[in-house]
Amino acid sequence: MPQQTGEFERIATFFAPLTENIPGALGLRDDAAVLEPSPGCDLVVTTDTIVETVHFVGDEPADLVARKLLRVNLSDLAAMGARPYAYTLNVAFPDKIGDAWLADFVAGLASDQKEFGIALAGGDSVSTVGPVTLTITAIGEVASGTALRRTTAQADDLVYVTGTIGDGALGLQVLRGGVTGLGPAFEESLVTRYRLPQPRLGVGRAICGIASAATDVSDGLVADLGHIADGSDLAVVIDAEQVPLSGAAHAVMAGDPARLETILTGGDDYELVFAVPPTEKGQLDAIATEAGVALTPIGSFEPGAGVRVRGPDGEDLEFQQAGYSHR
Amino acid sequence: MPQQTGEFERIATFFAPLTENIPGALGLRDDAAVLEPSPGCDLVVTTDTIVETVHFVGDEPADLVARKLLRVNLSDLAAMGARPYAYTLNVAFPDKIGDAWLADFVAGLASDQKEFGIALAGGDSVSTVGPVTLTITAIGEVASGTALRRTTAQADDLVYVTGTIGDGALGLQVLRGGVTGLGPAFEESLVTRYRLPQPRLGVGRAICGIASAATDVSDGLVADLGHIADGSDLAVVIDAEQVPLSGAAHAVMAGDPARLETILTGGDDYELVFAVPPTEKGQLDAIATEAGVALTPIGSFEPGAGVRVRGPDGEDLEFQQAGYSHR
Repeated sequence: MPQQTGEFERIATFFAPLTENIPGALGLRDDAAVLEPSPGCDLVVTTDTIVETVHFVGDEPADLVARKLLRVNLSDLAAMGARPYAYTLNVAFPDKIGDAWLADFVAGLASDQKEFGIALAGGDSVSTVGPVTLTITAIGEVASGTALRRTTAQADDLVYVTGTIGDGALGLQVLRGGVTGLGPAFEESLVTRYRLPQPRLGVGRAICGIASAATDVSDGLVADLGHIADGSDLAVVIDAEQVPLSGAAHAVMAGDPARLETILTGGDDYELVFAVPPTEKGQLDAIATEAGVALTPIGSFEPGAGVRVRGPDGEDLEFQQAGYSHR
Repeated sequence: MPQQTGEFERIATFFAPLTENIPGALGLRDDAAVLEPSPGCDLVVTTDTIVETVHFVGDEPADLVARKLLRVNLSDLAAMGARPYAYTLNVAFPDKIGDAWLADFVAGLASDQKEFGIALAGGDSVSTVGPVTLTITAIGEVASGTALRRTTAQADDLVYVTGTIGDGALGLQVLRGGVTGLGPAFEESLVTRYRLPQPRLGVGRAICGIASAATDVSDGLVADLGHIADGSDLAVVIDAEQVPLSGAAHAVMAGDPARLETILTGGDDYELVFAVPPTEKGQLDAIATEAGVALTPIGSFEPGAGVRVRGPDGEDLEFQQAGYSHR
């Protein structure tokens, strides 16, 4: 696209420094980036767009907006077992976005690039008459033929999740004033989980070759497990009491047990949920120790269709919330 | 990102069929796409975002909006000498976008996918409270180490351009009512050039290993030649009378010679402009014949800095229009 002089300067000032670890980005001054994939690797490509007022309010710190967008993409790479390589960034900015906001935004990217070992390879910067609209396309690498899929779970596989479930959705409820009496420390921990998910890249790579299927929990545990079950032509049964909760989520549940539905269906966890043959249980304990991330078995796959959640009283739970539509 | 049920259905109905030639797209139902780069190849990655009311009016036929966005990206691949492999698509749609518009949009993509040998590998579909915002990220392949760059022209290299220059910018002027008395056939040909550029993929691949530098003409011939000259630490001198014009552009010039500035600086040509050692002249004639595309020498690079355009009277031309700022 034709670019205005201001865009050239913004790209050179703010974005070009993000490419320093990728010579093939050509300083964002060429027609395209040149990537050199490692021999024997497949490339894993994922992309997400977020829109101000739809996916973020607009008054969040800009660095957190940037980091969440990058991390959501990294979470998809993790779910495929890939290691991060490079990303492209497309920004559509209204006039109100000034250099201060942009500097914060770029600082967030720079910080997370270093943490997760990825760098900017290319992008586009345009103006818009609408809300801030941001797209990241992340590229990762995985040994040829080993990418983890959603559709390959086997009957009798165990269901594992990383970390704790429900914090992201509860964090959003805190931000919206829907959680009271929790205390500032728990509130802050939930909000942080919502704003700054932890992509499980180490676990994702470690379970490559061990897990038979995986996805990340973005739409909600029940919905995302449904994607694996549907894609694999299986049913899945999980036990609500086994789903790992943070201290903050336990505190919310103590005040209002009905929040279990938010926890299991709310989404924005960016934990991994995956299927593992029962014979691999020992391997997983070793991976959990190595990665420093809890890996918790919460159920199993079986012949059939759909997702069943066994409640504390042994009866299956029914959820009102949308987000998961079977088939 | 969490997706709404409507988004799942739209993706399955409209976008999943565009992936049929790429098994690694996994039907757009997994966390990411898995691409298998050819051994011995680098990947070339480029991306563009367009916004309704900024880059397109909004009442154009949707298939043309889709095709231009894809072709602008393909033109960047052509400028690097790459062959198309796969692309991702991010759409942010306001509520007004219905299935009819979407069907036309997808039909445009389907048609150009077939013509240019590329397919959809992944994407994201979100809603927006603003204008339609569309991003394509295109991935191509080129033999390792052979991607054409902007920064590698040599002194004494000849400057060549493909096709004809200026039609895109004149087409935009026609659409805005700024060209009169041209006649409907010429008007239509210019508008078509603006709305539906021809990415020069065949020429781009053929000049790999022959051209010492290349770019595509998107910002305007003078600006884009300036990118090569600046990046290569050289000056470039072109002869305005050698710049190849279409019959329609000749007709515009006959009525108003001052339109030369639009032609040379207006942009939206999506032709290639490239640097070639004088010894390769014979090769280029063969490539032009093979590709069925005119390749015209219009000047040369020399030591120094900046872009000089020699006018019909032998004097250097001065242009008012922005779009090219030296250094």
